[in-house]
Amino acid sequence: MNWTLTIIAASTVAALAVAAPRAIAADAQQMEANKQAATEFYDKAINQKDFDAASKYLGPRYVQHNPNAADGPEGLKAFLGFLREKFPNYHSEIKRTFADGDYVILHVHNVPVPGARGRAIIDIFKFENGKIVEHWDVAQEIPEKPANNNSMF
Amino acid sequence: MNWTLTIIAASTVAALAVAAPRAIAADAQQMEANKQAATEFYDKAINQKDFDAASKYLGPRYVQHNPNAADGPEGLKAFLGFLREKFPNYHSEIKRTFADGDYVILHVHNVPVPGARGRAIIDIFKFENGKIVEHWDVAQEIPEKPANNNSMF
Repeated sequence: MNWTLTIIAASTVAALAVAAPRAIAADAQQMEANKQAATEFYDKAINQKDFDAASKYLGPRYVQHNPNAADGPEGLKAFLGFLREKFPNYHSEIKRTFADGDYVILHVHNVPVPGARGRAIIDIFKFENGKIVEHWDVAQEIPEKPANNNSMF
Repeated sequence: MNWTLTIIAASTVAALAVAAPRAIAADAQQMEANKQAATEFYDKAINQKDFDAASKYLGPRYVQHNPNAADGPEGLKAFLGFLREKFPNYHSEIKRTFADGDYVILHVHNVPVPGARGRAIIDIFKFENGKIVEHWDVAQEIPEKPANNNSMF
């Protein structure tokens, strides 16, 4: 038996076997980083209403699908200015965070004014190179008398 | 140098390196299966309004967070009966599908009656052993005059 060849063969198997999980681990690491970035962006934008701090998480574009906000970073800036003026205590709590590939999804309880039942919101953010480039969301008022006792969260 | 020990060490590295991606691959395979199951369930339930066909995708419980539907499989059955009677052409088109761990998220365009602009909906399904056990969603009317031209999808 040629020990050297056997050792090389075993090492090659090890190297090949490590390569795939490294790529998968890199993906998983990027998705975790995206989740963290989305969470921080949400707090800076929605809760602190600080466009300058929030804009650091944006990529070279910000395609807006929320039908109540104008397109682009300027639309976000105007929206946060509106919140700051009209709803200074507008607050959102993230209940769940998901990631799949380039996308992060947040399930959120939004309370526009203190004491309100508020709204359930689900946001979708698309990332490129660790930065947010596109946003969709859907919002619904939490009803006073739901048909079940499980809450919307 | 002890060749035998070296070979064993290299083999162990290879074995350990292979074990992790197998587990990850199994997770990825389960997530793909869950996506497929959620898509099929959605079509059977929402579009075909066929409770018997849809219920095959449910696990031992179905915890309902949609505030307009009663809890459990019976709540779903009643809701589909309501749709069948009041909105026989109620139709949803899935625009995006995501999966993260036990969860599948669907981004959906719902048209309750033909010709309506309809609603944007995001659904979250929780899976256990390949079956749906819990459901959340958020729905919003698509406005006539959105603040941007990107659509809600």
